[in-house]
Amino acid sequence: MTRLPVRIAQVAPLYESVPPFAYGATERVVSYLTEELVRRGHELTLFATADSRTAARLVPICERGLWRDSAVWDTLTHHVRQLARVADLAHEFDVVHFHGDPLHFPLARSLPCKSLTTLHGQLLPVDHGPLFREFASAPLVSISDDQRKPVPFANWQATIHHGLPRDEFEFEPRAGSYLLFLGRIMPGKRPDLAVEIARRAELPLKMAGKVHPGEREYFTEQIEPLLERSRGFTDYLGEVGGTLRKELIANARALIFPVEWAEPFGMVMIEAMACGTPVIAFGRGAVPEVLEHGVSGFIVDNVEEAVQAVARIGELDRAQCRRAFDARFTAARMADDYLRVYERIVAGTRAAVPASDSDADAQQVCG
Amino acid sequence: MTRLPVRIAQVAPLYESVPPFAYGATERVVSYLTEELVRRGHELTLFATADSRTAARLVPICERGLWRDSAVWDTLTHHVRQLARVADLAHEFDVVHFHGDPLHFPLARSLPCKSLTTLHGQLLPVDHGPLFREFASAPLVSISDDQRKPVPFANWQATIHHGLPRDEFEFEPRAGSYLLFLGRIMPGKRPDLAVEIARRAELPLKMAGKVHPGEREYFTEQIEPLLERSRGFTDYLGEVGGTLRKELIANARALIFPVEWAEPFGMVMIEAMACGTPVIAFGRGAVPEVLEHGVSGFIVDNVEEAVQAVARIGELDRAQCRRAFDARFTAARMADDYLRVYERIVAGTRAAVPASDSDADAQQVCG
Repeated sequence: MTRLPVRIAQVAPLYESVPPFAYGATERVVSYLTEELVRRGHELTLFATADSRTAARLVPICERGLWRDSAVWDTLTHHVRQLARVADLAHEFDVVHFHGDPLHFPLARSLPCKSLTTLHGQLLPVDHGPLFREFASAPLVSISDDQRKPVPFANWQATIHHGLPRDEFEFEPRAGSYLLFLGRIMPGKRPDLAVEIARRAELPLKMAGKVHPGEREYFTEQIEPLLERSRGFTDYLGEVGGTLRKELIANARALIFPVEWAEPFGMVMIEAMACGTPVIAFGRGAVPEVLEHGVSGFIVDNVEEAVQAVARIGELDRAQCRRAFDARFTAARMADDYLRVYERIVAGTRAAVPASDSDADAQQVCG
Repeated sequence: MTRLPVRIAQVAPLYESVPPFAYGATERVVSYLTEELVRRGHELTLFATADSRTAARLVPICERGLWRDSAVWDTLTHHVRQLARVADLAHEFDVVHFHGDPLHFPLARSLPCKSLTTLHGQLLPVDHGPLFREFASAPLVSISDDQRKPVPFANWQATIHHGLPRDEFEFEPRAGSYLLFLGRIMPGKRPDLAVEIARRAELPLKMAGKVHPGEREYFTEQIEPLLERSRGFTDYLGEVGGTLRKELIANARALIFPVEWAEPFGMVMIEAMACGTPVIAFGRGAVPEVLEHGVSGFIVDNVEEAVQAVARIGELDRAQCRRAFDARFTAARMADDYLRVYERIVAGTRAAVPASDSDADAQQVCG
């Protein structure tokens, strides 16, 4: 395939800046992808908050992340406005890559360039099924094969696993002394089972993660009393970001990931791998795609097996964990994958121009 | 002005059917307007849930109201899909009238017909200000003059107060024995002050209204204990709909409406007026536009004045309340107002076609 030069727009959600100050997996992925593509000489435009940091051309939509602006109530109004700015500039791009909610589908049909949408969340047959049937020609990317399962018929172009810059997390060769649970404190991630596993494995547990407003009741009614009862070995740190978060991951003996929902990807697993920290995870959602059992961690079925896996964690080589990351989860690999899709989409369009019409003008129109 | 025949599409929110089974002010207004326009011989198409009841052509989007479908999680996907159906059929209309969130703005620019948007909620300078500047040419209707205050510069075409079918509520000539608070149990509506007013006026209070999930904490922490303490004279009925709700309004001595937020309209005030029940309301938001002080109720500033107004309620003539409703708040008046705006918008377009281009084809294109 010819490697066409592509002029690419990235449209990020506006909830956080790109990259986000603390956590925000989607905004981080957009940042890693954008910077990697700029480094390779592509022409990048990023539609994001004004305080985003990027080497691309930035088209600012709002001052700061909408979740960080207490005056903002209706986040939809800002995302709608973002689409207007995308439409205004669309003639400058070969492909517009959307990362947020699928607000843009009706508009994308009339854009004078190609568009691509990466779905970052869980997909539901009742909601996304009818949507993807209606917009059957909109090209989509999944972040895991498992994410597609509820809507396998959609116009999937590729599964592209997330990736991190090679130097984002430092490799730590020595195994630490505690287990780690890191992630949003929500029922599907089963923080309670992490406590149970640590208790039975007789190791200290550090737990960190944001409590979203809608899940506060779950936290106060189920997790807080459990933390209180487990004070002897469990330490809840609240939401942790930046260097502290990286050290927390690097110095853990293992990351405990007892998910009971269809985790679409699980970014924290590859962060752990980058540090050399193995992962003990339930085999749900994207887990079997991300982890190699016996190499970067252990995939288990229940608490009992997780406890046994903790006992065997010394069998895993932290350097091999890191190598598993280097082989499959770098931002460079992610950028390669996306470029292939961009090129295919853009080439597809050009190929669709009949030979007789392929004069200079037709070449410029990519719709 | 020539009364052009207009082919009209109404795009309703999908949270409830049109009309809704219980409450849902926006869906009710869409229903009243649609049925009134059909009765007058206009060509109406309604984009709404499949279980909506209408004399218009119905384009069904989802089976039932999204809030009544426990399998639905992401309501946005359905509203995006609705826009695709509107775009598919847009060539059949002179004007598309949108009533939901302003999802459609980017699309509306490319529709082959005119569009109009009625804003049904509270508007905020930080959110709607930038939006209406971006889409400065999108024609808007406010439901009260007060609603415009945060964004006076927007492209307002008219303020059109809501209206009810003349026979929707029956006039009740006899004043009842209790005060009534009816509406969503939320801080801005101050149900607690209604209790205080009833206590000091020494009259029983009936209270009915939905508690939304986000306001459950307010209800359990502040309202429930108050109801418990006030059991001697206050009766909380939960969410009430249908005939029971109508009787509750008709048989009240007065509706107490102690709003402390910028109520965009306050539908329940005109429902009370239609029954002949006067309203005692704080003069916030749209209240001074809806009520005539000394005719359809009393506009007061605080609890003390409200208590005095309750004592004077016998001075008001219930028949005059009803006449105030008949004069200004019927669905027929509302339909007249909207038709004037539709006709102005459509005529504006046609006038914009240069004489030399005004052949049959040009006449058919209304973009």
